[in-house]
Amino acid sequence: MSQITVADRRFMRMAIELSVENVSNGGGSFGAVIVHEGRVVATGVNRVTADNDPTAHAEVNAIREACRCLRDFRLTGCKCYTSCEPCPMCLAALYWAGVSAIFYGNTKEDADGIGFGDDFIYREIEKPVLYRSIPMQGLMRDEAGAAFEAWRRKDDKVEY
Amino acid sequence: MSQITVADRRFMRMAIELSVENVSNGGGSFGAVIVHEGRVVATGVNRVTADNDPTAHAEVNAIREACRCLRDFRLTGCKCYTSCEPCPMCLAALYWAGVSAIFYGNTKEDADGIGFGDDFIYREIEKPVLYRSIPMQGLMRDEAGAAFEAWRRKDDKVEY
Repeated sequence: MSQITVADRRFMRMAIELSVENVSNGGGSFGAVIVHEGRVVATGVNRVTADNDPTAHAEVNAIREACRCLRDFRLTGCKCYTSCEPCPMCLAALYWAGVSAIFYGNTKEDADGIGFGDDFIYREIEKPVLYRSIPMQGLMRDEAGAAFEAWRRKDDKVEY
Repeated sequence: MSQITVADRRFMRMAIELSVENVSNGGGSFGAVIVHEGRVVATGVNRVTADNDPTAHAEVNAIREACRCLRDFRLTGCKCYTSCEPCPMCLAALYWAGVSAIFYGNTKEDADGIGFGDDFIYREIEKPVLYRSIPMQGLMRDEAGAAFEAWRRKDDKVEY
């Protein structure tokens, strides 16, 4: 845990303000800010129902916008300030983006308290495939390996 | 586990073909197909490095496209066929979308074998916040509650 700075509180306040405004604007109660070297590079709010996009969470929108601005698929050295603890989708997206720190306001239990399924999905992801509520099964693994073999052989691939 | 049908194998073959083609097209070795009532409504491939978007995994792209086509933020009754076991971001996105079944070709261990971090992120998500490799900390929870309170009070909200 690092020492919280005045700037950290300012960026978190921005994320919270975005989350409050977004409720008035027909979106979910979530906002996020991505900061690089002390400057805001992108913000995002939850537009799931407004945009018919279940992936349009505040953090995912902020990550996509930040990557567009920085012209990179990695957000190395960036910090994410989000009004609520990221759901597993957003947390994994922050890992793929490689941010250096995550600050959050409300907890996933708070989100649960107003009817969002974050905590349920965390528990589902921890379960073995066969015990999850959405039926999942492996199929044609032998054939699927062809793409991975092509990837392995490709000389000019961009790894991440 | 349900009985695998000829149609299941056909849709999975389509996802695998997309994943193989995508390697030649400068993308990652992943493809996905979303099916509704026996018809393909959307496909997706991994465009992370090509589009500078760490969230542009095959399943996320297919979900976004399917929701656009069906004009819904839920994919109730849809099945997802993906060339590789979904990473936690994509699995959570499939939960948020509410698909009815997921079929996958390669496993997350296979993905690990060609250098993708899916398995690492699964293990990180299972850890308590304080033990994760990306530093995470709560901040200003009292102020963040304002958006949740506004959500609770909103009469015309669209819940999900």
